[in-house]
Amino acid sequence: MARSNHRLPKIPEMTIRRLSIYTRCLLQLEEDGVKTISSQELADRFSLNSAQVRKDLAYFGEFGVRGIGYYVSGLKAELQRILGLDREWAVALVGFGNLGSALFHYKGFARQGFRIAVIIDDDPGKVGREVDAVPIVAGRDMAREIKARGIAIAIVAVPPEAAQAVTDQLVAAGIKAVLNFAPTRLRVGRDVRLKNVDLSIELETLSFYLAKSGR
Amino acid sequence: MARSNHRLPKIPEMTIRRLSIYTRCLLQLEEDGVKTISSQELADRFSLNSAQVRKDLAYFGEFGVRGIGYYVSGLKAELQRILGLDREWAVALVGFGNLGSALFHYKGFARQGFRIAVIIDDDPGKVGREVDAVPIVAGRDMAREIKARGIAIAIVAVPPEAAQAVTDQLVAAGIKAVLNFAPTRLRVGRDVRLKNVDLSIELETLSFYLAKSGR
Repeated sequence: MARSNHRLPKIPEMTIRRLSIYTRCLLQLEEDGVKTISSQELADRFSLNSAQVRKDLAYFGEFGVRGIGYYVSGLKAELQRILGLDREWAVALVGFGNLGSALFHYKGFARQGFRIAVIIDDDPGKVGREVDAVPIVAGRDMAREIKARGIAIAIVAVPPEAAQAVTDQLVAAGIKAVLNFAPTRLRVGRDVRLKNVDLSIELETLSFYLAKSGR
Repeated sequence: MARSNHRLPKIPEMTIRRLSIYTRCLLQLEEDGVKTISSQELADRFSLNSAQVRKDLAYFGEFGVRGIGYYVSGLKAELQRILGLDREWAVALVGFGNLGSALFHYKGFARQGFRIAVIIDDDPGKVGREVDAVPIVAGRDMAREIKARGIAIAIVAVPPEAAQAVTDQLVAAGIKAVLNFAPTRLRVGRDVRLKNVDLSIELETLSFYLAKSGR
């Protein structure tokens, strides 16, 4: 069940998510001209848990300096490197309906180094067009485009009934990581990372708190 | 910083997220005709951590039965009640561009009891129309519609530069929980729950694993 890794202890996925959040906090601090910060100050300022911050970072090394805390820019750069954000990732976007289009224009991806390099959609009205210089190609050309562009990450934004077939094609074309927005359960081999985005979970954390407060 | 609560110990938000995931697993088991399951079997089947399952559930009571495990349907119903999913929540959707439109049609919300009851958008080409019998109203009518429909939850899907002003209006209209998709930092008062969805964090957990494997 746990994926084996020969270099690092198994790192909880939530730790990885939190590294992303810490990176955003450090970017903010850098913009605000803050040079160094303690884990406690970092926690206070961004409503984090300072023990959790130290524990998460400890998986990757010793980043704090006694009496100083963390160097903001240095730690940010380290976390970006750990998260693979010190390089650009070409991404394939499959499905260019409302959701695909919204994801294509989502500013947050490019800012973190994720560049949608090709859009795959079988709609004859879309195939052959370009959006902001990114080509829309048909599914039959998926493998060729993914290989030619050295793409390892795909975003799946097709209707749920099409998602598994598309994912099988992506994996056959060499994709190693899939971010799935289709509200359905997908199967991939063990050498492929699959991440499902379930948008209703976010609403459920809100309804939990509203239900608890008796609304 | 910690929100006070007089009935329950402070519950980590990740525990709430996991309750959502457990609920989905239990729904799946129910569909498969499974009547009872141990925490270990549940963990094995859905790649969870059995100690974590027990710890998360322990915040809310004693659900396991010695020698039997959990009753699938009973535990599912309990978790749904805890998450506030045993009722319908009317939701206001603000912004009906690509993302708003994609969210409106997202199947997962309705399935969990979240019903978009009104859409708010200032585009003159959209105001006054209906989408699947849901009215699109202008921002100036926001407060009236939210009060008349008893809406407590809003989804913000407007451009980042408009998000804070919209959120202030929502809160003034009585909204108690905001799910924000705009890639910007919002401020709300302490009596309002804010949840930011940062879609690039999901991609970053993937790039972490790809970077680690040396791709």
